[in-house]
Amino acid sequence: MPDQEAGDNAPVDPDLMDKVVGLCKRRGFVFQSAEIYGGFRSTYDYGPLGVNLLRNVKNAWWEAMVQRRDDVVGLDAAILSPPAVWEASGHLSNFTDPLVDCRQCHQRWRQDKIDGVCPNCGSTEFTEARAFNLMFKTHAGPLEDEGAVAYLRPETAQGMFINFANVLQTTRKKPPFGIAQVGKSFRNEITPQNFVFRTREFEQMEMEYFVPPEQADHWFEYWLGERFAWYLSLGIPESHLRLRHHQADELSHYSVATADVEFLFPWGWDELEGIANRTDFDLKAHSAASGERLEYYDQPSGERYVPYVIEPAAGATRTMMAFMLAAYGEDEVGGETRTVLRLHPRLAPYQVAVLPLSKKETLEPVARQVLTSLQPHFMCDYDVTQSIGKRYRRQDEVGTPWCVTVDFDTLDDGAVTVRDRDSTEQVRVPINGLVDELRRRMDRA
Amino acid sequence: MPDQEAGDNAPVDPDLMDKVVGLCKRRGFVFQSAEIYGGFRSTYDYGPLGVNLLRNVKNAWWEAMVQRRDDVVGLDAAILSPPAVWEASGHLSNFTDPLVDCRQCHQRWRQDKIDGVCPNCGSTEFTEARAFNLMFKTHAGPLEDEGAVAYLRPETAQGMFINFANVLQTTRKKPPFGIAQVGKSFRNEITPQNFVFRTREFEQMEMEYFVPPEQADHWFEYWLGERFAWYLSLGIPESHLRLRHHQADELSHYSVATADVEFLFPWGWDELEGIANRTDFDLKAHSAASGERLEYYDQPSGERYVPYVIEPAAGATRTMMAFMLAAYGEDEVGGETRTVLRLHPRLAPYQVAVLPLSKKETLEPVARQVLTSLQPHFMCDYDVTQSIGKRYRRQDEVGTPWCVTVDFDTLDDGAVTVRDRDSTEQVRVPINGLVDELRRRMDRA
Repeated sequence: MPDQEAGDNAPVDPDLMDKVVGLCKRRGFVFQSAEIYGGFRSTYDYGPLGVNLLRNVKNAWWEAMVQRRDDVVGLDAAILSPPAVWEASGHLSNFTDPLVDCRQCHQRWRQDKIDGVCPNCGSTEFTEARAFNLMFKTHAGPLEDEGAVAYLRPETAQGMFINFANVLQTTRKKPPFGIAQVGKSFRNEITPQNFVFRTREFEQMEMEYFVPPEQADHWFEYWLGERFAWYLSLGIPESHLRLRHHQADELSHYSVATADVEFLFPWGWDELEGIANRTDFDLKAHSAASGERLEYYDQPSGERYVPYVIEPAAGATRTMMAFMLAAYGEDEVGGETRTVLRLHPRLAPYQVAVLPLSKKETLEPVARQVLTSLQPHFMCDYDVTQSIGKRYRRQDEVGTPWCVTVDFDTLDDGAVTVRDRDSTEQVRVPINGLVDELRRRMDRA
Repeated sequence: MPDQEAGDNAPVDPDLMDKVVGLCKRRGFVFQSAEIYGGFRSTYDYGPLGVNLLRNVKNAWWEAMVQRRDDVVGLDAAILSPPAVWEASGHLSNFTDPLVDCRQCHQRWRQDKIDGVCPNCGSTEFTEARAFNLMFKTHAGPLEDEGAVAYLRPETAQGMFINFANVLQTTRKKPPFGIAQVGKSFRNEITPQNFVFRTREFEQMEMEYFVPPEQADHWFEYWLGERFAWYLSLGIPESHLRLRHHQADELSHYSVATADVEFLFPWGWDELEGIANRTDFDLKAHSAASGERLEYYDQPSGERYVPYVIEPAAGATRTMMAFMLAAYGEDEVGGETRTVLRLHPRLAPYQVAVLPLSKKETLEPVARQVLTSLQPHFMCDYDVTQSIGKRYRRQDEVGTPWCVTVDFDTLDDGAVTVRDRDSTEQVRVPINGLVDELRRRMDRA
């Protein structure tokens, strides 16, 4: 785990959050949405580097949860969904926050967040609390009547429950098996906070693992272990990761056991992922509401049952942020302080930067040739401006694990210099062995 | 292009559409959304095979448009966006359909689609046409007032225009350069149609290429060529692909030239992708509305200008459908008719299926070992049920290019049989050379 040290250093830096947020803006990881119009209500856009990092996080999850398993299949359900789904799931009645209006200044607040005093005017007089549903509502079709109401999904999970029978039938999987999905969800949070940690529009990576009821405890423990290990394998240091089991009064309406994978954010421990035993709540609820049998029939034994569900549900954007926070470091190289993002090479926005030593036209053709040979295999940056030292610093700061420098010797020996981000070690590698060498380094990471 | 023949056969089969739609449902490519609740207003869910195919389409686009180019960077902007964006872009006033209500039965229709007579009751008496905006509207925050209005984006393009200055500054790119994005868009279509071809929720693959104004015509032609070639390279036969230049009266409010890449669908030629010269319309509109300078300043020459934009904008889901239609074929193998989906190996939901010849326990461990060795490199299926012939047919039908059969000889010679989907040719390959052999086939495809 190459960024162990970075992680260990992180909590002693009181400015870490500001530094990472600043880096995000300065280098194009994250922009405020509609920034030229003054920004928009806690939504964010992912810039050229952020979109690469976010894609890598989601792809690493997909590879671990779908591609490398033959007991999990993928799904991509619609965001727009009818009220019937959310009535059955309990979201229409339970997915609410208690809101009050200040009687003096008429500002609206979340009752459980204001400690009895209006943060705006100090009044203690409020209206009765009303349950405010967190789902975004819209209308589909040409009429804005009740029959046209649609909700933006507040979680991807329900798309997997309502497709349970379809997936069972078309894939002929047997419990234990899972359905996985990566996609956007929307929650009309009253108090979005902490940069991209809690936002109204966010991206989830959820998997519903359907098991025989008597095996639910076993698989719950299994997935706690798997998911914890996933973050470690991609470079979150163990010192910054913990499991926290929910108390009975914290549990969602559908869960009998939940544990969170928590990361030590600059503001304290907070959730990256929840792993829940959702029991047979959802399948039974949709079965009752739709009249469809959502159960498993085991032909050999003649047994028929409604599976329990173990759900590891992670947030892609907050996970991306945790990887950045854990990877952020400052150290000294050649007497100068540098900022370095020790991201796992699989996650880094660019795996390779190709840097011709000089702008002279003699180096450009071979540098471009090197670039073209690497592009099918790696995300590459190409940078020709300013001194080589400045270009190394720029790549260090955004986490590029390997810089490939093309110099005048290259024209003679057909080799390039590969510089390692973490050790800053430089070795000479023949161009025709470059892809293999970088692949080896990638596999070793 | 391995599926040339399939494509050439396609138009003579009047049942092609029904067959492909049937295959989509039967094998888990596409399900109707919320099917257990009677479905929901022309939205679709992508099942285990569909999500793989759709991911492959989007990844192939990303590789061609971003990864393999150093003049294009990615972006992932929010779906929720404020009215200011759509006011400046012209969508609030121009992105409308004319709707009328029947005075007799009170049904609502799109005026330009009904030929003067109510399709429900035959009346010819209608209300005056009203402009119906196709954007989905919702509210963000705890108040449903005007200040809280948000729209679901009807195109991803605007997210790139409003981030133009951010991207310029953080990447230091110079025109010509592009910003690319893959993501969901939403249009409240009055008449969704043709399965996943026109739906209210859909996925776009758009790129905005910013160029010096005097080079706009050149780059327009360049991108026509590039994008046409992309479809060919992934197996759409030339007989089913054409470019159609828009007439002046067809052009959108922002465009001076548009050409569509069209595919020969079962219902006729229809659009896969539009390539438009959007001029400086969008940057100027956002510049005027926001007061921000959205222009390029070329330091060496001291020149300052607003770039023109060439936009190749493709639909991911309709492209996926075109690939399936072009790949669908029926032929005779060993005296039996088979259905075969001759998808390009890069697009196929599974690249490899591992099939132990018998369920006997002796084959299971080595078959699993083979599976595990392939999974890091390919999307793999694993199937043990029914005869090997039936299992080949099942894989042919969903487009798996290679079946790897583990038999009793494997225990002696450490080799497996690799069967090719298109030729049905079988060759023996040592297990320790299997990944390389399949990679070679993939590269040759």
